[in-house]
Amino acid sequence: MALKTLGAKAAVALDQELMSTCAFSIDQLMELAGLSVSQAVFRVHPLEKGPRILVACGPGNNGGDGLVAARHLFHYGYSPTIFYPKRSKNELYQRLAKQLEDLRVPFVDDFRTALDSTDHVVDAIFGFSFSGEVREPFPAVIQALADTKVPVTSVDAPSSWDIENGPPNSGLGSNFMPATLVSLTAPKPLVKHFTGRHFVGGRFVSPMIAKKYDFEVPEYEGLDQVVEVAADGHRL
Amino acid sequence: MALKTLGAKAAVALDQELMSTCAFSIDQLMELAGLSVSQAVFRVHPLEKGPRILVACGPGNNGGDGLVAARHLFHYGYSPTIFYPKRSKNELYQRLAKQLEDLRVPFVDDFRTALDSTDHVVDAIFGFSFSGEVREPFPAVIQALADTKVPVTSVDAPSSWDIENGPPNSGLGSNFMPATLVSLTAPKPLVKHFTGRHFVGGRFVSPMIAKKYDFEVPEYEGLDQVVEVAADGHRL
Repeated sequence: MALKTLGAKAAVALDQELMSTCAFSIDQLMELAGLSVSQAVFRVHPLEKGPRILVACGPGNNGGDGLVAARHLFHYGYSPTIFYPKRSKNELYQRLAKQLEDLRVPFVDDFRTALDSTDHVVDAIFGFSFSGEVREPFPAVIQALADTKVPVTSVDAPSSWDIENGPPNSGLGSNFMPATLVSLTAPKPLVKHFTGRHFVGGRFVSPMIAKKYDFEVPEYEGLDQVVEVAADGHRL
Repeated sequence: MALKTLGAKAAVALDQELMSTCAFSIDQLMELAGLSVSQAVFRVHPLEKGPRILVACGPGNNGGDGLVAARHLFHYGYSPTIFYPKRSKNELYQRLAKQLEDLRVPFVDDFRTALDSTDHVVDAIFGFSFSGEVREPFPAVIQALADTKVPVTSVDAPSSWDIENGPPNSGLGSNFMPATLVSLTAPKPLVKHFTGRHFVGGRFVSPMIAKKYDFEVPEYEGLDQVVEVAADGHRL
């Protein structure tokens, strides 16, 4: 039985409800989302595979999740590097970046060069609210992620994929298939096109909310903040 | 070698610095503190020992850590119950309480009765900023915690203990020795009087801050948000 997916509009509505009637703050949700991502990276890329993690952050919440994940990865013993070319003026993101700077985590401008000297990449460029066109400077970044042999973990969506329909039919992103995907709260419809390792994270959803939005909370084990499912969302 | 302790004044200064120059929000810190507490409870009181966890919350930040811990414990499969007699009007605490209400976690008024039907207690009444007198309605609660055979996990300090000098010489709290203590960021001087199982939590402190405040970040393992140390802070 596949986990039900959460469409693009429903994902936006859920996110808004979590921060209004459910009374979560964005700081809390982002901390828990980034923690989930860091735990998935730890599972698919244990430290002995190499400590260098390049985290590519977009301008929005997906990028914020990446910043939080990078901090947790540092504390697990990894050496993260951040590519964050479109820094938000939003105070939360500025604080998340400062927390990394205090850990002496480097921020780099040249993605290609950083990609040549990393062991793993976290794609935190675009998430469930993405639609339409990939803006500069991200087309070249996504092309590099599609072409590289370095394994990539995408947060919520492979960046450039349509949330409902998956990879574009042609052009940028059409040949991008990350090794790992971390779906936050619930898989999005795009997972039917995904063929890598797939985790669900976000162990904070109440049964009431899952019912309202008609998705299932997967069965997490122990203290885990992520659970591995099949590529298309079927339970393993 | 014992972990260095963080005195009462230094703990207050560190907390303020984390939320100012270090750019953490209180939402973030409380989420990570409560997560640490929940992981320590999971270790000392695995689910098979009984799912019922009574969380006694004080009016301040210690109580907030307890509210967060209770939410994580719910998601691990426990059945938490909350005793929170002095609800803060602070918006953050109100939100943390709402998150529990949405999980149908019960809030109770009668501590004694709740204590008679629980498997474990979390003491999140007073933390590192406590000094002086125990105000109503907490004296009877602390006496009950001192007298009960139900195992207690205290957050940051056994409530009523002096942060520097430990248990009072006589009267309320003088015979209170919780089974477990979770020291957040660093043990406080009171640990030299503590004889139970002792964990340190708060895996977010930068090496820079630990150096400035002259304490050590313990060596966490894997994804753990807590590490067990000796009762008095010596490394195991």
